[in-house]
Amino acid sequence: MAGETAVLLISCRDQKGLVAAVSEFVYRNGGNITHAEQHVDVPENIFFHRVEWELKGFALDAKEIGGAFSEVAQHFGMKWYLRFSDERARVAIFVSKFDHCLLDLLYRHRMGELNGEIVAVVSNHPDVEEHVKPFGFPYHVFPITAENRAAQEEREVELLESLGVELVVLARYMQVLSPLFVRRYPNRIINIHHSFLPAFVGAKPYHQAYERGVKLIGATSHYVTEEVDEGPIIEQDVCRVTHRDSLETMIAKGRDLERQVLGKAVRLYLQHRVLPYGRKTVVFD
Amino acid sequence: MAGETAVLLISCRDQKGLVAAVSEFVYRNGGNITHAEQHVDVPENIFFHRVEWELKGFALDAKEIGGAFSEVAQHFGMKWYLRFSDERARVAIFVSKFDHCLLDLLYRHRMGELNGEIVAVVSNHPDVEEHVKPFGFPYHVFPITAENRAAQEEREVELLESLGVELVVLARYMQVLSPLFVRRYPNRIINIHHSFLPAFVGAKPYHQAYERGVKLIGATSHYVTEEVDEGPIIEQDVCRVTHRDSLETMIAKGRDLERQVLGKAVRLYLQHRVLPYGRKTVVFD
Amino acid sequence: MAGETAVLLISCRDQKGLVAAVSEFVYRNGGNITHAEQHVDVPENIFFHRVEWELKGFALDAKEIGGAFSEVAQHFGMKWYLRFSDERARVAIFVSKFDHCLLDLLYRHRMGELNGEIVAVVSNHPDVEEHVKPFGFPYHVFPITAENRAAQEEREVELLESLGVELVVLARYMQVLSPLFVRRYPNRIINIHHSFLPAFVGAKPYHQAYERGVKLIGATSHYVTEEVDEGPIIEQDVCRVTHRDSLETMIAKGRDLERQVLGKAVRLYLQHRVLPYGRKTVVFD
Amino acid sequence: MAGETAVLLISCRDQKGLVAAVSEFVYRNGGNITHAEQHVDVPENIFFHRVEWELKGFALDAKEIGGAFSEVAQHFGMKWYLRFSDERARVAIFVSKFDHCLLDLLYRHRMGELNGEIVAVVSNHPDVEEHVKPFGFPYHVFPITAENRAAQEEREVELLESLGVELVVLARYMQVLSPLFVRRYPNRIINIHHSFLPAFVGAKPYHQAYERGVKLIGATSHYVTEEVDEGPIIEQDVCRVTHRDSLETMIAKGRDLERQVLGKAVRLYLQHRVLPYGRKTVVFD
Repeated sequence: MAGETAVLLISCRDQKGLVAAVSEFVYRNGGNITHAEQHVDVPENIFFHRVEWELKGFALDAKEIGGAFSEVAQHFGMKWYLRFSDERARVAIFVSKFDHCLLDLLYRHRMGELNGEIVAVVSNHPDVEEHVKPFGFPYHVFPITAENRAAQEEREVELLESLGVELVVLARYMQVLSPLFVRRYPNRIINIHHSFLPAFVGAKPYHQAYERGVKLIGATSHYVTEEVDEGPIIEQDVCRVTHRDSLETMIAKGRDLERQVLGKAVRLYLQHRVLPYGRKTVVFD
Repeated sequence: MAGETAVLLISCRDQKGLVAAVSEFVYRNGGNITHAEQHVDVPENIFFHRVEWELKGFALDAKEIGGAFSEVAQHFGMKWYLRFSDERARVAIFVSKFDHCLLDLLYRHRMGELNGEIVAVVSNHPDVEEHVKPFGFPYHVFPITAENRAAQEEREVELLESLGVELVVLARYMQVLSPLFVRRYPNRIINIHHSFLPAFVGAKPYHQAYERGVKLIGATSHYVTEEVDEGPIIEQDVCRVTHRDSLETMIAKGRDLERQVLGKAVRLYLQHRVLPYGRKTVVFD
Repeated sequence: MAGETAVLLISCRDQKGLVAAVSEFVYRNGGNITHAEQHVDVPENIFFHRVEWELKGFALDAKEIGGAFSEVAQHFGMKWYLRFSDERARVAIFVSKFDHCLLDLLYRHRMGELNGEIVAVVSNHPDVEEHVKPFGFPYHVFPITAENRAAQEEREVELLESLGVELVVLARYMQVLSPLFVRRYPNRIINIHHSFLPAFVGAKPYHQAYERGVKLIGATSHYVTEEVDEGPIIEQDVCRVTHRDSLETMIAKGRDLERQVLGKAVRLYLQHRVLPYGRKTVVFD
Repeated sequence: MAGETAVLLISCRDQKGLVAAVSEFVYRNGGNITHAEQHVDVPENIFFHRVEWELKGFALDAKEIGGAFSEVAQHFGMKWYLRFSDERARVAIFVSKFDHCLLDLLYRHRMGELNGEIVAVVSNHPDVEEHVKPFGFPYHVFPITAENRAAQEEREVELLESLGVELVVLARYMQVLSPLFVRRYPNRIINIHHSFLPAFVGAKPYHQAYERGVKLIGATSHYVTEEVDEGPIIEQDVCRVTHRDSLETMIAKGRDLERQVLGKAVRLYLQHRVLPYGRKTVVFD
């Protein structure tokens, strides 16, 4: 739209002068703020801030900004994260055999909805490769067995590192990642769970929902942590089901939900709008 | 609208000729069917049917219909339930201190949305009485303590029986009913739970939801069974929350959800549209 | 699921004995009804019925059923429509340059959500062909100019007739079909309009919505009639927008809505669940 | 929650240093910002800002703040609006015979959801008075005829002025206010229209929706301007209807929508979260 921008994502203990200090930093260097959002978790006394400004005419070069801002940050004890709109995050998508979420992400990428570069599709099965081809992304198969899991994960990590991957998206990847893998990508692995968490954790949530006779089914996109299905939630949605729905039609409705919810979560992440803390997220959408 | 009608709610093992037999029974006696819905639970092989017809010009008197239909029913092993539109179910509403669901039901009653008669409001606290008065319904207080619970429940049952109550609605009634009470009103007690069940069962679901950082909160209306929060679900809905929502605003949003969901469940019950079976319901809406 | 079935879609003047006559016809010939829905438009006094039964063990061959049922139909003055689950409707999809609805339909077809055969993709532009190829459907280009419109439409109709097309889906086809074309496919052309009709009829509805400052945008799938944007509505949905949405993000949100709404409308049509009458539809979903 | 706060609502031509200047003003005087939101309408180049801070420990008295801030405002050409959380806006509610929106607002007031004082209920009919009584608000009847309209409006304005009314809420008030009245309360009259505007403007929108066969009905809350149904929209919502809905059940569903949508719009206004401009609003929720 308007040319290149910088984004600062900030969190720290709430205290006086935070917004003033950040906006003064931008203004003093000649920047025009295009978006600014702020939130305080009052019970926890944590301040969250997202500020985006135009780089055109800014007094500092992109590579000088971090150094200059770190003085402000140190004064307030801020955790911060600086990104530029022309530096698109590199993304790997993991998938097993269900390809609806994967293809949806590839399509959103093609339409320019995702502010990132998909650099690899990784799967434990070869099945989905032919549908990825027309989009032109490399497809890597790492078959997983009980025996080779650790070794294969290591090879996956090597691949991700060689490609400079920042974000791993589990687009219905039917393997549980090891704690080792998860710890390498803290709050940088996004999963789609096919239920309204925390209802129906674990395997076969549509079967569980069918048995329980719920009137809504859901999908949840969350960061992956070492505790399965317990990571901070980024986005959720539901749709209505009735007694007329079979397990099969519930799964079909769920496909629509899953791709919608995962697509939104990935888009928000890539626009640097998600701030995880504890079991929660602040989403500046 | 069209004058008096009869409704038959039927369930039985699925077999050939069911719809034909019921519709032939109505036609043979000169009735015009205004609504007919049917459902088969294929895995369980159970047939469900709801048929409504005009009584004007019907060959049988209201009191003869049951006897005449029982022949059809016996032939197929049907469980059935016959109701007339001019015979409005008698309803008692139980409430504690939160009155939003109660007042909403009273208002819906006044607007003619509920096909029933509210004959008593029962509470373990006197607090809400003054707001019920303008609607003109009797208000009964039965204070509950750990010691007097059983005795008070007995008095409540006496009252309900003396009033010919068919349906008990728990409109945020903060006491757990004893198994004895529940067994007297099988599938005739409707509760509102302030979460999207089965997420956040038990106490303080909004607190649980706030702690978990969900992006949607819900409400669930279900039949009360002996297992708390496990009865067949009649209706559910959700609304969106964000990091900006405090526990207080979540509770306020929840009030809107709860009254909406409970109001719909009660309306559906009173129109004889709900067929519970096992942990599920068929809702012919 | 259960093997082959037959579906009857019926409408006629409401009168006594309709459900009985149809269900008796099925039963007499040994059929088991799996789904039956009925509706009466009381102000218009029109009866609508959808009945589906298993063909296994049915006394009549598929090709005898119509003849046998026509006696029942004549007696009551029914308009009726008989279909078999193993006889899948042949579908042509028209598209211009936006391919999100098209690709979504092709994907739903691949997943088995659509009870029909896509036999042609027709476009006035070559742009989308490469994305259709992996799905293996033939792609036909008929460039349209002010001068050749009538001639090209004739060629399109020839193609559709040679392929035995029953249903034409306009998946963001940016040309207005001539009355001649429309009359050849009465209630057999389904369009997706990118607004909540009747708001924002005509061109550029997202621009109109943006200018008006609405808080929800919508999409509407409807039958095409000679009056543009006035045909019977099959399905609609909306999503929330805010002041933060630019025209561009509204269009992106709209893509999600459009493919969802059109996908559902086409699925319902192909399951023989839609009965249009006047400006309305009965949808037995 | 946290004690008294001040809120500034600001709009002006977008330019550098706006956020810095406002936050610096707050910080310099010892305030802690609890909420800050900002928006730029890029095509129109307008900046919008809402900032809220704690008054505890603030260097300026409430009555000095405006004067001190006006220097900042003048420098940037800001339009601004300063409010304090302990200074609750005075509200009059206008109603005719349908009382669902009115009673809902009174209930929300009682529950503490509305940051304002209801000082009068005004009606052209006496019908609703008895239901207002238990809430304890004064009820004023001004019968309107074609002849006395102008005179009665003048008396209404006198009443509103004597009561210091800031916000007029039309809670299904079935009279069109004169341009004279509207001009006295620019962007301070909120109406609920019983359709998804701009669909079904004018009278009897549910009848129009029923005739058109839509699958969703809506409600819209908007500021009243001299052009009927054309004012800036604050909030909208929809719910699903089907062929089974009669005009009567659509109206009942609409009641739920209307009270929900109007309640939310009034709550947002009273929390100083709505900034109208042209035909649009910025809603900082």
